[in-house]
Amino acid sequence: MKENINVDVLIKGGTILTVDQKHRVIQDGAITITGDSISGIYSSDEIPQELEAGMVIQADGKVILPGLINAHSHLAMTLFRGFVEDLVLQQWLERVWKYEFSVLDDKAVRAGSKLALVEMIKNGITCAHDMYWHFEQTMEAAEEFGFRLLSGPPITGLGDQAFDEMFAQARKTLAWLDSLEFVYPIIQAHSTYTTTPKMMHTVREFKEEYGITFTTHASENQAEVETVLEQYQQTPIHLLASYDLLDESTLLAHCVVLDDEEIELLAKTGTHVVHCPESNLKIGSGIAPIAAMLEKGINVCIGTDGAASNNDLDILGELRTAALLQKGSNRNPELLNTKQALEMGTINGAKAYRLENDLGSLEKGKKADLVIINFDKPHLTPVHNPAANLIYSSGKSDVETVFINGKLQLENGQLTAIDEEQIMAEVRSISEKFV
Amino acid sequence: MKENINVDVLIKGGTILTVDQKHRVIQDGAITITGDSISGIYSSDEIPQELEAGMVIQADGKVILPGLINAHSHLAMTLFRGFVEDLVLQQWLERVWKYEFSVLDDKAVRAGSKLALVEMIKNGITCAHDMYWHFEQTMEAAEEFGFRLLSGPPITGLGDQAFDEMFAQARKTLAWLDSLEFVYPIIQAHSTYTTTPKMMHTVREFKEEYGITFTTHASENQAEVETVLEQYQQTPIHLLASYDLLDESTLLAHCVVLDDEEIELLAKTGTHVVHCPESNLKIGSGIAPIAAMLEKGINVCIGTDGAASNNDLDILGELRTAALLQKGSNRNPELLNTKQALEMGTINGAKAYRLENDLGSLEKGKKADLVIINFDKPHLTPVHNPAANLIYSSGKSDVETVFINGKLQLENGQLTAIDEEQIMAEVRSISEKFV
Repeated sequence: MKENINVDVLIKGGTILTVDQKHRVIQDGAITITGDSISGIYSSDEIPQELEAGMVIQADGKVILPGLINAHSHLAMTLFRGFVEDLVLQQWLERVWKYEFSVLDDKAVRAGSKLALVEMIKNGITCAHDMYWHFEQTMEAAEEFGFRLLSGPPITGLGDQAFDEMFAQARKTLAWLDSLEFVYPIIQAHSTYTTTPKMMHTVREFKEEYGITFTTHASENQAEVETVLEQYQQTPIHLLASYDLLDESTLLAHCVVLDDEEIELLAKTGTHVVHCPESNLKIGSGIAPIAAMLEKGINVCIGTDGAASNNDLDILGELRTAALLQKGSNRNPELLNTKQALEMGTINGAKAYRLENDLGSLEKGKKADLVIINFDKPHLTPVHNPAANLIYSSGKSDVETVFINGKLQLENGQLTAIDEEQIMAEVRSISEKFV
Repeated sequence: MKENINVDVLIKGGTILTVDQKHRVIQDGAITITGDSISGIYSSDEIPQELEAGMVIQADGKVILPGLINAHSHLAMTLFRGFVEDLVLQQWLERVWKYEFSVLDDKAVRAGSKLALVEMIKNGITCAHDMYWHFEQTMEAAEEFGFRLLSGPPITGLGDQAFDEMFAQARKTLAWLDSLEFVYPIIQAHSTYTTTPKMMHTVREFKEEYGITFTTHASENQAEVETVLEQYQQTPIHLLASYDLLDESTLLAHCVVLDDEEIELLAKTGTHVVHCPESNLKIGSGIAPIAAMLEKGINVCIGTDGAASNNDLDILGELRTAALLQKGSNRNPELLNTKQALEMGTINGAKAYRLENDLGSLEKGKKADLVIINFDKPHLTPVHNPAANLIYSSGKSDVETVFINGKLQLENGQLTAIDEEQIMAEVRSISEKFV
């Protein structure tokens, strides 16, 4: 008699979208979780008889996919959801800045971040980037909830007065991050137009010294490109190249305004791009040339940006918008197919942060971050193509179950361990200060 | 002592978005339904003490809006959801046509239509257009469910052989429609490139004789415009003008490829336009110049098109895409504001079908078609701007309650009278014939 194979969780039935290199779609197979990791993935005829599981999830009529990765965001900006509508960028910024300075404090950022984390878990997101003020609050909130956060000290400022202090503080933050399990340290700068060359050279040194990923906003809109051209006689992309900051450990957010030569440069250097289609549309930045980037082999992942310019944190929605947008704006429906969309929402985000050995696909040995979506709904019937239904027809609330690091965070659409009512109440109370 | 005011339904609390001419937003007010109509709308200090209601809905934390109108669709194409992905239009059409001829029959169309009706009710849609084969099945399904359908005989064909028979049949259909309560008769032609001038002249006569609205596809993509230019030496819009078919009782679907002169012509003649942004993007047609149309005063409403090219029937999603798209593609975030988006999804659809005296806004005396959306969710918190949360942050399943013609069709997200499981099972069974 064979020995039992003990696992913590067994998910049976359903359709597994692995998003591995072979893009396997496994019908009626099984996936097991042991501790924080995926301990097995089986096709229907491979499932061992001897599996003994602490929890069995019967997933017939459901789709199992890797946890979604939100590769660019500003979490606490949930506080500003719907607060700045239909305004040109300068007015938008002025209105946001006013309240960022008058209302935001540690408490507000912590509450806004928790709201973002709750929203993201319910939307099937298991890992997200953050760049914002009072960032330690967001880091602690992610650690408390067991949500993977990609964050680190943000570098910004147009004078070099506070230079030493800023980087001393950055070192402290990075040292502190050693003690957190769920926060993956990065170094980030706001942009080339809100930093000095001296800062960016030091960022370059930090990135090298700590072996961490660097991210910044770049070429988000025409006005930014013109500002940088005027000051530096080169575009943000070329300026970043002059700082020696374009390489495989750099992730640029937005990249809406790029010419062919810049796309070549990003491709050649292995620089990653995070596309934020809904934010780019909503504040009138434009449409990033993502199809051209993909064709050149650039690794493009996806982000929601902050909820102030979106106005939600919904990666499946962003993938739908991204795919529709490339097909429509290029008048070519073959562009950004469903496989590419799925990759952008999962493995490409993992690659951008160089975490692809642990995250981004359903493979034995990777961390158990996974999402189960219920397809037993009118708007997801029939299922001719599970990935197409997922990208084009699913809605946020179809996300039923979420595991992060092997822990069940969402069960039947309900958070298992987080009190969302209390977080919503706190955010409502803070938002009364916005008038 | 005052006499009681008896109403069937009283909805109290919540935020009412009237979408009337004043765009009133009523906080903590009330709306009453008597029979099939709205019998009262009250601000918080106007609510009569004497109201006696058969049903009271407490809507605190919720938003009440007019039923959404899907002004262009092909309902039974839910059968093709996700079946034709990432293909150029000609391949897309060939694949769809093959199955339209081999698989579709009365039974299939009825099942696919019922699925569409269920999906739409759950998404807050209370009235929809349909143009498809076996259309009587769709009409009967709408009548059975008590869902408002805008439909009528479709005219199409490149020869005039079956001419007399087609229009004799159209007369029969229109006579039959007199017996249905929920189907509003229209006359429709597929397009200028799939009809003959003789047919279109007769359509013009029908429209006049019956006093009904005419709708057709027009200028959906560049290939269509070139085809028509080659055959008729004028564009679809000018060809329709030559048929004397541009006026206030005509609604054109798509209008993606328009020049400034054509926009002027549509504005001058009072011709209505239905925008289908997601379908236009997905099959690579392009981005319709909606902002320019709105600026010229054209009445633009919104449609999902069929689920084969979308792949869902979600008007709130279309409104989000429409607004984002005009802002982004024109690099101007002031375009297509939330008020305009809300109008496109409600009153503008009613105007396009000349039903604005009965439908499209929450006003005393109009039909009781209304939707209640639950905002007590993380992704809808905080509420700085209810309309912005609705357009940009809500998801399909936030629709909680739907009344059509005073009848409660959806309660707490559950259909009150329709067996959705049986409809889904039937569609799944039919979809197995698609291989």
